[in-house]
Amino acid sequence: MKLAVSGKGGVGKTTIAAALVKSFARTHRLVYAIDGDPDACLAAAIGIPEEVAARLKPVAEMKELIRARSGSGPIYRLNPRVDDVVENYAHRLGNIRFLRLGEVKKGDSECYCRENTFLRALVSSLLLERGEVVIMDMGAGIEHLARGTAGGVDLMLVVVEPTRNSINTARHIWKMAEDLGIKKIRSIGNKIRSEKERKFIAGSFRNGELAGFVGYDESIWESAMMEEMTPQAGGRLQSEVEMLKKKILFL
Amino acid sequence: MKLAVSGKGGVGKTTIAAALVKSFARTHRLVYAIDGDPDACLAAAIGIPEEVAARLKPVAEMKELIRARSGSGPIYRLNPRVDDVVENYAHRLGNIRFLRLGEVKKGDSECYCRENTFLRALVSSLLLERGEVVIMDMGAGIEHLARGTAGGVDLMLVVVEPTRNSINTARHIWKMAEDLGIKKIRSIGNKIRSEKERKFIAGSFRNGELAGFVGYDESIWESAMMEEMTPQAGGRLQSEVEMLKKKILFL
Repeated sequence: MKLAVSGKGGVGKTTIAAALVKSFARTHRLVYAIDGDPDACLAAAIGIPEEVAARLKPVAEMKELIRARSGSGPIYRLNPRVDDVVENYAHRLGNIRFLRLGEVKKGDSECYCRENTFLRALVSSLLLERGEVVIMDMGAGIEHLARGTAGGVDLMLVVVEPTRNSINTARHIWKMAEDLGIKKIRSIGNKIRSEKERKFIAGSFRNGELAGFVGYDESIWESAMMEEMTPQAGGRLQSEVEMLKKKILFL
Repeated sequence: MKLAVSGKGGVGKTTIAAALVKSFARTHRLVYAIDGDPDACLAAAIGIPEEVAARLKPVAEMKELIRARSGSGPIYRLNPRVDDVVENYAHRLGNIRFLRLGEVKKGDSECYCRENTFLRALVSSLLLERGEVVIMDMGAGIEHLARGTAGGVDLMLVVVEPTRNSINTARHIWKMAEDLGIKKIRSIGNKIRSEKERKFIAGSFRNGELAGFVGYDESIWESAMMEEMTPQAGGRLQSEVEMLKKKILFL
């Protein structure tokens, strides 16, 4: 099962992705949790303590590894060896293997195509060569998916909240995902506080495009100032995502 | 006055940027509103109707213009002519000139350094060659700023909400902005609902790092499902941003 989770910033993409990681970790032997959004924090959301998470080096910054595998001259390899990267560099948390892809710099005049290519090769290897569960938290840009490897994604979940902006972004993501050849895409309506909000989202998608809804969970906002989530926080969301997961497995 | 507004997705960056654009448009001759975040929608927030906004072509997708200015062969110009782009391609709304930079594709094997370079040249021209007010809504990646042009930003505002994640992202943005040579950076605490939340943000920054606070405005959330904001919506936020603006002008 290879899941990609996308959506506009702030809709609760990472919270949903983390709930799915925790849920699959209870029922499957091994779960790869991949943080592919530089503007996200999947590590904390799955329960890696903040000081540990802060020390984890993102793949994009593993300069020596990338030079060693991609070549260090002006020419670089388009198919660097990456099959051992997860085993050797992922952080272990029970049966979860966590890896942050990190940010490929764009702010100066250097070309970072080498780093981008390395990350795409890694994502490709995760999607196409592994039998385990892979859950990838992506930005709205879904930039690490390339044509050809996107076919390895079994399901892309696009999270929306009851705002027009998040739905417009979702439309854009659907289009990009379809162009890339992702076979199955569904939206999830998050932060629902009323029937009006649920209807607004339901009315924004066609029949079959919505995988389901998750209610607004005040306890998540309440605990968002704390260093670690209290065990109760997000409990309602977690159980709603468990239900969603069952639906997802039968899609 | 050249302002850049940044922050984690979902913190209300675009709402704050739009309130600043509207405020400066009342007091200054000309305001350039630049949407530099592919995951944002500054156009709608400043009042451009959705169907008009949908037809505005982002600069990154002006293929012919970019090829004409940057060259179309395997070699491209590092300093394409961009000084007329704003005049000829910006959308006019009263004395506001709106331009969406758009998304530089990264999903396939082609190199888009040409497009990136063109966008950076345009941002540089906006920041360094214009006397008017420029307000740029940026993603958390601040990817369109390059060393050298970043010096043209008079003030970078990093919006946070009362969550640890948004503050961690802000720290990261502060560091990048300092590395790029931005002289003045301040944070703004947004969506404040209680004294506890205000204190949490105040305690997360050092003296002088915070420009101020903006309260949670339920009317913005309420109107986020509508096609156009009602005139009353966001009124409280707008007046709070007016106050902030006065502080900003004296920084």
